[in-house]
Amino acid sequence: MNYSHGDIFVGEVIGTAILILFGAGVCAAVTLKRSKAMSAGWLAIAFGWGFGVMAGAYTAGPLSGGHLNPAVTVGIAVDTGEWGEVSLYIGGQLVGALIGAGLTYLAYYAQFAANSDKKSAQPTLGIFATIPEVRHPVANLLTEIIATIGLVLPLLAFGLDEGIGTSGTKTLLVSFLVVGIGLSLGGPTGYAINPARDLAPRVAHALLPIPNKGTSDWSYAWVPVAGPLIGAVLSGLIFNAAF
Amino acid sequence: MNYSHGDIFVGEVIGTAILILFGAGVCAAVTLKRSKAMSAGWLAIAFGWGFGVMAGAYTAGPLSGGHLNPAVTVGIAVDTGEWGEVSLYIGGQLVGALIGAGLTYLAYYAQFAANSDKKSAQPTLGIFATIPEVRHPVANLLTEIIATIGLVLPLLAFGLDEGIGTSGTKTLLVSFLVVGIGLSLGGPTGYAINPARDLAPRVAHALLPIPNKGTSDWSYAWVPVAGPLIGAVLSGLIFNAAF
Amino acid sequence: MNYSHGDIFVGEVIGTAILILFGAGVCAAVTLKRSKAMSAGWLAIAFGWGFGVMAGAYTAGPLSGGHLNPAVTVGIAVDTGEWGEVSLYIGGQLVGALIGAGLTYLAYYAQFAANSDKKSAQPTLGIFATIPEVRHPVANLLTEIIATIGLVLPLLAFGLDEGIGTSGTKTLLVSFLVVGIGLSLGGPTGYAINPARDLAPRVAHALLPIPNKGTSDWSYAWVPVAGPLIGAVLSGLIFNAAF
Amino acid sequence: MNYSHGDIFVGEVIGTAILILFGAGVCAAVTLKRSKAMSAGWLAIAFGWGFGVMAGAYTAGPLSGGHLNPAVTVGIAVDTGEWGEVSLYIGGQLVGALIGAGLTYLAYYAQFAANSDKKSAQPTLGIFATIPEVRHPVANLLTEIIATIGLVLPLLAFGLDEGIGTSGTKTLLVSFLVVGIGLSLGGPTGYAINPARDLAPRVAHALLPIPNKGTSDWSYAWVPVAGPLIGAVLSGLIFNAAF
Repeated sequence: MNYSHGDIFVGEVIGTAILILFGAGVCAAVTLKRSKAMSAGWLAIAFGWGFGVMAGAYTAGPLSGGHLNPAVTVGIAVDTGEWGEVSLYIGGQLVGALIGAGLTYLAYYAQFAANSDKKSAQPTLGIFATIPEVRHPVANLLTEIIATIGLVLPLLAFGLDEGIGTSGTKTLLVSFLVVGIGLSLGGPTGYAINPARDLAPRVAHALLPIPNKGTSDWSYAWVPVAGPLIGAVLSGLIFNAAF
Repeated sequence: MNYSHGDIFVGEVIGTAILILFGAGVCAAVTLKRSKAMSAGWLAIAFGWGFGVMAGAYTAGPLSGGHLNPAVTVGIAVDTGEWGEVSLYIGGQLVGALIGAGLTYLAYYAQFAANSDKKSAQPTLGIFATIPEVRHPVANLLTEIIATIGLVLPLLAFGLDEGIGTSGTKTLLVSFLVVGIGLSLGGPTGYAINPARDLAPRVAHALLPIPNKGTSDWSYAWVPVAGPLIGAVLSGLIFNAAF
Repeated sequence: MNYSHGDIFVGEVIGTAILILFGAGVCAAVTLKRSKAMSAGWLAIAFGWGFGVMAGAYTAGPLSGGHLNPAVTVGIAVDTGEWGEVSLYIGGQLVGALIGAGLTYLAYYAQFAANSDKKSAQPTLGIFATIPEVRHPVANLLTEIIATIGLVLPLLAFGLDEGIGTSGTKTLLVSFLVVGIGLSLGGPTGYAINPARDLAPRVAHALLPIPNKGTSDWSYAWVPVAGPLIGAVLSGLIFNAAF
Repeated sequence: MNYSHGDIFVGEVIGTAILILFGAGVCAAVTLKRSKAMSAGWLAIAFGWGFGVMAGAYTAGPLSGGHLNPAVTVGIAVDTGEWGEVSLYIGGQLVGALIGAGLTYLAYYAQFAANSDKKSAQPTLGIFATIPEVRHPVANLLTEIIATIGLVLPLLAFGLDEGIGTSGTKTLLVSFLVVGIGLSLGGPTGYAINPARDLAPRVAHALLPIPNKGTSDWSYAWVPVAGPLIGAVLSGLIFNAAF
């Protein structure tokens, strides 16, 4: 299928905005005081991100196929050899992720406002971007590379080289694949596995007027960009060699 | 497909009754003392509502397509431009939601009866209707608008403009979409995202002879009606503009 | 499709044995000391039973369609008017449920053996049969009737009148329907919604050489038989009237 | 479908590596200190393994059908009578499981490194191989036999005798079947139900330079090999007799 340039951009913007709204949303839901889901724990986070991928990708499907992730886009490009629309996809993903982070801020406005008491204030970066549990750049990078291979290699083998949102059943399979990555490989770094998912919301975190928001931790920001991109290239190479 | 007027009404009554029986049921299950599911937490609530949508919508499917939600009905009407049966759908949904709330009361009769000791009595509104965690009408309204867009925009993009219950696989996708909304966007207001789901059970709460039932909180009742309807209109407009 | 008498019996025996192995199994897993799943809670129980229905019904599908439940068999018979094989189905279900309870005992043999210290012994009936949280026969009966309608009416509307295991996607929908019933309507009575699921394992509990097993609570045993059967008949009647 | 010998081997290596990466990964995630998923509990473990089967099997599908488990391979061989490629499948599975265990070690490198303080060190075998909760070889063997029948008999009845990864919907059914086995039958032994899943990661545990890793418990290693193989043969025999 050939998607028009306009549709690709709009589809990735809308789909990635939904993904981040659900993903950052569940992190807000589970961590912010005065949220009903507080302490729902890691299972909620993993399912929330997984269903966010489903919601965003299947929504974007008719417009762009639904990549929502530069690692997916790059993995598909390495596989198919078609690089012409890669920057268009990634541009849409970054814009969409920014919008999604903004919507999350609005959806949890009252909770963020309640963070204004300095004494009981919580750090908020973890809602928007990933933070490693043990800070060890090489190990963290390796984790992100492996976790991204766990996403992109299956996705290519599933035959989804037009996007995650092009088949209801396969979209559901990828949704549970993402839940699985969260449960199994999210422990060390919080599983970015998607440069747009980490970078754009981190920018949003830096810009949004959240009281007592804490650091945006820019020194770590390269890891969840570089790791998934390396993992994507490796996935494409493994796929082309093995399949 | 053209559904007859009688089928539409009956389908929405039965489907919405099932939805509310499952949805109010899981809230009763998780919050009432002397329920086996007590403290199963937010994950149980999110999955319970999601599977309730699946059960109700796919049951109603052959009769009415399965909307079960005025926001779904309005979103579809904005998309398709066909408003002729909107009030019929919404009427069925309100009646069904009332019945569902009554059935929940009967299913948990012994638990509600056990609420008669004034000292240990629990408030019960949260079983039937939504209560914001932080009371802030503008923010609460915004949360409901955004969460409803998270439901209705995907639903339209999924191609479900005849109803949620018209395709097994897509019905399942919407079921998990609703689980995702609960996990990700339910924290601030308890995610009505459906005027019938909130208003009719709130009426039921006011009428039912539940001991020590506490307030029905009518001052908040407009938010979970207005928010989802605004979100539905916006979803239809965004869909028509982008797709 | 016409199933042979032999296939019906064998299919229901195997399918119901798998259902009870998974269902009683998850109750053992979550409640018995020295089980790795101890305290996994109500979510685990609900998902365990739901996936047990899927496993058993889709296994039995080629032989008998996969009913696994006299309430399903009776609901289908009321709908279709064909009662000729009802007793054959129910016979297979009762035998299968007995076998499933025995297999559960064997699978958890070391855990049951560890129950031999009288001081720390746990009651074990809850692993095999249902126990109401508040003992109130009329209310308990009503809960079972409503919960069974929540199973059988959707199942008929899903078009599964040849059995639960006749379509992969619909089998999955019923599996999540059963998870939903557990989460939403299991609080008061532990949701038998299946006479064979309760009666035969209760017999097994009475017969098995479990140390310190506690009462088999026969005075309650009629409720989880009568309630589901009444619910099944009502489901068939509602279905025939409305659809 | 006929798979080439090369494809079978490569498919089973890749698929089983993914399975073990997800499966050992979720055990690491839930048990290791300084993992974000620590204490996510048994539900996380069951879903993690189930989605690992889905990810690995559907990835391997185009190459080998996706067995990922000598018990699956043997069960299919007993059913079909074709034993010619059994050792090729099992060889690939063992190699893949070794690689998967190594990748898990790399993904959790920083967490394993943090185990170097002898005082707070945790045993790590449970991440890679199964450990019975009550050590009772006969009972443990019986549990593994029964749990494996709970996997292989349904799988054969599902019509998956070319592999788990040959149909999106059925692959999803098997994924939830494995979740169900974990929830329902994992309590006593931690459910190997797969000789390659236990043996090869146990070898990896013995070889990997994990600080304070504790025993590899070789005296138990035969149970999770023999039990699943016996269960697989029994499944094939029951299937051929009954279906």
